[in-house]
Amino acid sequence: MGMVFDQRSLTLDGATAVLDGARRRAVELGVPVCLAVADPAGTLLAFARMDGAARLSIALAQDKAYTVAAFGLPTSEWYPMIANDPALLHGIVKADRLMIFPGGVPVRLDGVTVGAVGVSGGTAAQDDEIAAAGAAALAAA
Amino acid sequence: MGMVFDQRSLTLDGATAVLDGARRRAVELGVPVCLAVADPAGTLLAFARMDGAARLSIALAQDKAYTVAAFGLPTSEWYPMIANDPALLHGIVKADRLMIFPGGVPVRLDGVTVGAVGVSGGTAAQDDEIAAAGAAALAAA
Amino acid sequence: MGMVFDQRSLTLDGATAVLDGARRRAVELGVPVCLAVADPAGTLLAFARMDGAARLSIALAQDKAYTVAAFGLPTSEWYPMIANDPALLHGIVKADRLMIFPGGVPVRLDGVTVGAVGVSGGTAAQDDEIAAAGAAALAAA
Amino acid sequence: MGMVFDQRSLTLDGATAVLDGARRRAVELGVPVCLAVADPAGTLLAFARMDGAARLSIALAQDKAYTVAAFGLPTSEWYPMIANDPALLHGIVKADRLMIFPGGVPVRLDGVTVGAVGVSGGTAAQDDEIAAAGAAALAAA
Repeated sequence: MGMVFDQRSLTLDGATAVLDGARRRAVELGVPVCLAVADPAGTLLAFARMDGAARLSIALAQDKAYTVAAFGLPTSEWYPMIANDPALLHGIVKADRLMIFPGGVPVRLDGVTVGAVGVSGGTAAQDDEIAAAGAAALAAA
Repeated sequence: MGMVFDQRSLTLDGATAVLDGARRRAVELGVPVCLAVADPAGTLLAFARMDGAARLSIALAQDKAYTVAAFGLPTSEWYPMIANDPALLHGIVKADRLMIFPGGVPVRLDGVTVGAVGVSGGTAAQDDEIAAAGAAALAAA
Repeated sequence: MGMVFDQRSLTLDGATAVLDGARRRAVELGVPVCLAVADPAGTLLAFARMDGAARLSIALAQDKAYTVAAFGLPTSEWYPMIANDPALLHGIVKADRLMIFPGGVPVRLDGVTVGAVGVSGGTAAQDDEIAAAGAAALAAA
Repeated sequence: MGMVFDQRSLTLDGATAVLDGARRRAVELGVPVCLAVADPAGTLLAFARMDGAARLSIALAQDKAYTVAAFGLPTSEWYPMIANDPALLHGIVKADRLMIFPGGVPVRLDGVTVGAVGVSGGTAAQDDEIAAAGAAALAAA
């Protein structure tokens, strides 16, 4: 690849579009959540704690976004990937900030991963749906 | 043993030979990984993150090398060793930096352990094969 | 900036050119050091501990590279910047991984920051000279 | 140096000789202290908390031994070394486990550093004298 390469990344405007898209879905579902958007390095770009969202979710949402950035997969794919490999199942969960349940989703634009969004506070299915709505909002913005 | 003994350890040249050997195998396999080489005390000597390797693997590779140095076994032997002892299986995984799945291999020269190599980023089998190639590269260097 | 932008970053080949350039200068100076190269997000790309380098320097070198990536300035510019502001001087040093003394230098190519190099183990002047030699080696590679 | 080198290190018998020598001096001085002996990698070999020694000293003694192993100098030489370099004085103290006051001393045999001893619980002068007595006890053993 030569000495350097270009990593495409969300701007704050892009991260805000993701955050707003996720938040709209959370409002529609009537579930207060914490929302975090990170760049491809896993660094926080934007965060919001909706009124009433659990404090516990503040870190979880950020860690979900981080997990997606740090490994590339949606967090929902982690448990199925390790469920039948007991060494991995027992051994990897403690990895720093690793989240193996739904709510973290890659943010892509034109097929390129440009960031990640993490949601915590609802059910697993709600968190994942809200995060996916955030990711989808970027292309529509 | 008397009051002192001599602990044989990799130099940076030795660690580089291990790292390069492992990296060559990773290139052959076409899998981007993180590579870490430690001395027998578990201290980091050399590290490389191949282009595209997951950020999550940066710490995992180093922790695999540390685990080998800290206990003596390849990391692949940990899970079989504790699988049938549930107290150990559930209780020891939290030990600081302990990695119980493949990818960490001792580095030996003339039958003496002189360091450890840890690899993360591929499948368990790939990580282990890459690490073993690194360990084997020392004797050939 | 629109929704996304492109962040130019060192590849492993680029990071290796920086590491090797710094190491050559350390050998010329006859001072064993730890050398770390990070991408613009502060994530570790390559590391080497020269024979005889202090173990204490392993983390310091990495933290110097991180500090450069995390704030943009050479670490040598931090102390002069905060020396006359006692609240800042006493209060900011504890910031996670912040290093306020020489040895961390940005790596630029064609005027664009593409990474950072951190060196620890010599005097402040030696560490800075070695790091600068590493940064300069990229353009020459 | 080739691919490997030999690092001379204390055995447990050697570490015990150091610990016992230090403890005898502490008894002579009538000051209860914590005593720690580490190998050249900074790893703990032997530890004793004398009756009445402060709990706070448990970690301090170990960190003093670690500091000596991790950088090579007696801990008493750290403050004079950094006192006139304000960037270092303010910036390096937070380094993990770094102790910049007396009580940590290298353990040498025939001119080779084979470990370190750390003492905490007395005055700075007492801690240093006790540690030095431990280091001296090795050659006499």
